[in-house]
Amino acid sequence: MGKKGILTVISGFSGAGKGTIMKELVKKYPYFLSVSATTRPPREGETDGEDYFFHTREEFERMIAAGELIEYAEYVGNYYGTPKAAVEKQLRDGKDVLLEIEMQGGMLVKEQFPDALLLFVAPPSAEILKARLNGRGTESVEEIEKRLQRASEEVTYMKSYDYIIVNNELEKAVEQVHSIIVNEHCRTGYCTELITMMESELTQFAKGD
Amino acid sequence: MGKKGILTVISGFSGAGKGTIMKELVKKYPYFLSVSATTRPPREGETDGEDYFFHTREEFERMIAAGELIEYAEYVGNYYGTPKAAVEKQLRDGKDVLLEIEMQGGMLVKEQFPDALLLFVAPPSAEILKARLNGRGTESVEEIEKRLQRASEEVTYMKSYDYIIVNNELEKAVEQVHSIIVNEHCRTGYCTELITMMESELTQFAKGD
Repeated sequence: MGKKGILTVISGFSGAGKGTIMKELVKKYPYFLSVSATTRPPREGETDGEDYFFHTREEFERMIAAGELIEYAEYVGNYYGTPKAAVEKQLRDGKDVLLEIEMQGGMLVKEQFPDALLLFVAPPSAEILKARLNGRGTESVEEIEKRLQRASEEVTYMKSYDYIIVNNELEKAVEQVHSIIVNEHCRTGYCTELITMMESELTQFAKGD
Repeated sequence: MGKKGILTVISGFSGAGKGTIMKELVKKYPYFLSVSATTRPPREGETDGEDYFFHTREEFERMIAAGELIEYAEYVGNYYGTPKAAVEKQLRDGKDVLLEIEMQGGMLVKEQFPDALLLFVAPPSAEILKARLNGRGTESVEEIEKRLQRASEEVTYMKSYDYIIVNNELEKAVEQVHSIIVNEHCRTGYCTELITMMESELTQFAKGD
């Protein structure tokens, strides 16, 4: 049996740069990026099946009812969710899977996948977060206010994550996330085969073989 | 208040190469290497206060009684222990501290320092461990047998460690240990200042400041 893949959840405030980090990670390393399902309309340049699976509310609610999502949540009036089957297959095949989801979803993933690695991408300060949201230019003033309000509620989830990645410099943040996942493969829980082999070999030596 | 240092315990079977890894780590990076106290006689080339603090049994037992050791254990007829005061001072000063100790000691450190990072250095196989012990040429045949017997007992501790470092190639093992410790600084528990700052800033924004 091969080694199991690692499921990494990446969350962070809207505007913290987690999407960009994810894109760089899959460009440089062989991660499987789980594509979310959503009912929010595509933004300019977004492709169905690549950025998101875009669905109507009716379709999305059918998927919920059929148990086809690991987690889902409603956020700023739209559904977001994680299709289950593809993630489970990749993990079984030994591939490391990345999930970009908001915090409520992250907590639900942790319940179902207790070995999941939970990473929280944070800006160096709240002031910088605000400036980044303004600079993006894709949202209205009210939308930005809404997102900051949301961030002030989401901040309580930070403590439930395993690691905080301060996104000060993109390249550094990308390498830090990668290095955390690489190291996770040395976690004792992922080395059970090695431990079992050592136990049996050393027991034989102790018997004088 | 500055950031707390990280206490890393490095254990492994005799002959797994943990001593060499430690030496490389302190040569390349600013770690504080805790020097153990022992009653075993110095090997050729070993310096008191550098490799170990060499003590008589009487002196060592006085230190135990005075509570001057974080942990101590008897191993192959000799005492080994970790002087407490120096380690605590370095951690307070924000320095990362490395402790090379055997597994019983590692468990005692974890009890007293629950945040300690426990790393287990393992050879790629038990066969290679045996070959390395033979190749070292500093021990008698009986001594090697004793160490392998001991390893077969110690193997049960592997599961209690946080990470397993397979020492296949020295340079790689050194970088892996270093990277695990660097990442540990991003653990949520070590980022409480950042979280508190975010909470207070975002709460102000939500109030419309």
